[in-house]
Amino acid sequence: MTQHDAIEVIIAKRDGGTLSDSQIDWVIDAYTRGEVAHEQMSALAMAILLNGMDRREIARWTQAMIASGERMDFSALSRPTTDKHSTGGVGDKITLPLTPLVAACGLAVPQLSGRGLGHTGGTLDKLESIPGWEAFLSNQEMFDQLDDFGAVVCAAGSGLAPADKKLYALRDVTGTVEAIPLIASSIMSKKIAEGTGSLVLDVKVGSGAFMKDIDKARELAETMVALGKDAGVTTVALLTGMDTPLGFTAGNAIEVTESLEVLAGGGPADVVELTLELAREMLAAAGVTDVDPAEKLRDGSAMDVWRKMITRQKGDPDAPMAVAKESHVVTAETSGTLTRLDAMSVGLAAWRLGAGRSKQGEAVQAGAGVVWHARPGDLVAAGQPLFTLLTDDEWRFERALAALEGGWAVGDGAGFTPTPLVRGRIS
Amino acid sequence: MTQHDAIEVIIAKRDGGTLSDSQIDWVIDAYTRGEVAHEQMSALAMAILLNGMDRREIARWTQAMIASGERMDFSALSRPTTDKHSTGGVGDKITLPLTPLVAACGLAVPQLSGRGLGHTGGTLDKLESIPGWEAFLSNQEMFDQLDDFGAVVCAAGSGLAPADKKLYALRDVTGTVEAIPLIASSIMSKKIAEGTGSLVLDVKVGSGAFMKDIDKARELAETMVALGKDAGVTTVALLTGMDTPLGFTAGNAIEVTESLEVLAGGGPADVVELTLELAREMLAAAGVTDVDPAEKLRDGSAMDVWRKMITRQKGDPDAPMAVAKESHVVTAETSGTLTRLDAMSVGLAAWRLGAGRSKQGEAVQAGAGVVWHARPGDLVAAGQPLFTLLTDDEWRFERALAALEGGWAVGDGAGFTPTPLVRGRIS
Repeated sequence: MTQHDAIEVIIAKRDGGTLSDSQIDWVIDAYTRGEVAHEQMSALAMAILLNGMDRREIARWTQAMIASGERMDFSALSRPTTDKHSTGGVGDKITLPLTPLVAACGLAVPQLSGRGLGHTGGTLDKLESIPGWEAFLSNQEMFDQLDDFGAVVCAAGSGLAPADKKLYALRDVTGTVEAIPLIASSIMSKKIAEGTGSLVLDVKVGSGAFMKDIDKARELAETMVALGKDAGVTTVALLTGMDTPLGFTAGNAIEVTESLEVLAGGGPADVVELTLELAREMLAAAGVTDVDPAEKLRDGSAMDVWRKMITRQKGDPDAPMAVAKESHVVTAETSGTLTRLDAMSVGLAAWRLGAGRSKQGEAVQAGAGVVWHARPGDLVAAGQPLFTLLTDDEWRFERALAALEGGWAVGDGAGFTPTPLVRGRIS
Repeated sequence: MTQHDAIEVIIAKRDGGTLSDSQIDWVIDAYTRGEVAHEQMSALAMAILLNGMDRREIARWTQAMIASGERMDFSALSRPTTDKHSTGGVGDKITLPLTPLVAACGLAVPQLSGRGLGHTGGTLDKLESIPGWEAFLSNQEMFDQLDDFGAVVCAAGSGLAPADKKLYALRDVTGTVEAIPLIASSIMSKKIAEGTGSLVLDVKVGSGAFMKDIDKARELAETMVALGKDAGVTTVALLTGMDTPLGFTAGNAIEVTESLEVLAGGGPADVVELTLELAREMLAAAGVTDVDPAEKLRDGSAMDVWRKMITRQKGDPDAPMAVAKESHVVTAETSGTLTRLDAMSVGLAAWRLGAGRSKQGEAVQAGAGVVWHARPGDLVAAGQPLFTLLTDDEWRFERALAALEGGWAVGDGAGFTPTPLVRGRIS
């Protein structure tokens, strides 16, 4: 590898230039090894955020992060692999019903998931509310589980794209998270290193999403789809709304319970719709066109895979779920139509109730979260419960209520039009 | 002090906003204390470099850096104080004759100087080539020396603007040196904290200077003059040329010897001219209008102060100066006019010969450097010596000669016009 100098690389990007392949390979490798210091990488990240990167640079940056660690290989499986990634939303429990559903359709889904930080929850935090369930698997255990029944949700091992892990933690504390080249390469380096054959991206847009703006969300989606293609991974992205939270729950145990309703053939209409849309995209991306995922929800085969998946990872699918010690109900003061339910407000409230963490390594409460009893467009009557707040610590209610304040509105409903869940598709 | 959050401050500047007084006070204080991490400050520095700061922000940033440490007070001196700061050039030994000269005119000059890093030399490195001379003084020693004869050149104590020291070292390794708000506040925070009553800035412009471009140099000068005024320090700036090095020497001992020629009433015309220009500006800034500095060179009183200044800091003004072990002469291949002598090439050659250091703490060679025997406009004859290269290590010649290559030209002199030394004045 050609030796470069950190200052030379930083100045090239600072002054609006493009980085060469050799500069990118060197800076990622040297940062992983600790030769490039954190303060140098954060200055470079800020320069990338403000001056951008072209498609070649982003592709090379992604490849360099993949090359910083091991790359998984599922080519020996009897089933084609596919995966889904969401950029994160409030009440976004879709991975839970989707993974066993797509496995029930004959594919293998190697879902390497993360924990939540901030107002959006993490898939592992949700699953860890199931008594006994374990997030850590060896590569061999993961392979065997996929080979047996096609579904695994587990923690990403430390060997996968270590450069991304280091850089992600740095960006989190240096105001350099919101750079499309860095977001796109972070997501795609992990997913490509994970070894999936195809990938469906759920890029959230709206008040509760990372991307508030449809144009930025589209740019991110297009960047990631291009990166997938460059790496030989068939990649499709849906742009989906996140002004309103998904379903009726945001938390950990309560989101598992809602997911089980979907797997049992019921559940909130929007969660079912998005689960099926994403399942169809995953099947199509993997070249499977003759299976109807809705049928796999109805006939119980998705639920069967769920039970195997939980049991194999030492969880008890029949154990009672955690219940929060304290609850507080917010009722409607007037009758009318719920015209607004803000995803960010709900996400913050759930976070403050203890469902999320404010720094890495903090424990979360299994039973904490927010249940809402109406969705925009629903009629509500004065005195009717609108929200149930759940936590183990009574002192948390005040701050959660403050987060909810102004986050919802009841009006006469004139001019209210529901917005479609899927706002765009990029392939 | 109001508590802020590093990420909030970084994002405000990243997104093109202005920082509040409270945010600036907090971030400088918290960085000095280590609460804001290096990687956070470097991201902020890059955002400042790319998005700028307005005059209020720069003034507050400067004040906050001054407030991070002690502030010296020379108001009890019997003489008015004045000081000079140069942004750094090749062969720039002006501080050496200027400080005793201005003291001989009745002022006190508290010159806190630094060491060289890169292709421009440091005043302390030059003075340390005088046997016995010591750079470190206590505040009391400095005060007494100024009170007795008005001249001191010494190392800045660690108590002065510690935030600037920390930030300067960080900028040096993170590609964030070239930000006018940060350069201006760094220089001015030290000079204001040093307690001088008036200040003359020598802002270099040209190939061998930090600012290659006259507009950028003017912007920097105007920013610093405004900062001085805001702090109640009468401040004037000269923009002076640095396409060609000053005098005939770049190094340590050889620059001291050239400075002694000036103090003895001789010396290179450009060094004498700039020394006198700056002396007149310093006298005027301190309100002294009835003294002619040229007379103080002629009558030997500036040399008298030099001898006191060196002796008081344990140096021997009569000791023989260091002589490099090896020398190499470059001769002219053709006869003609020297049409170009590039300051950066000469500076790099002197640096590579051992006169400068490539990282903090490295030792420099007292005898190393470059002597040139002609200046642009001079006639040269084939076979005449053009450069003498000096070093203790023979292996250094090859790299020094490579630095000089292309850095000078002999031609027919048609159309050659000398450029004026002083290019502008801002007050």
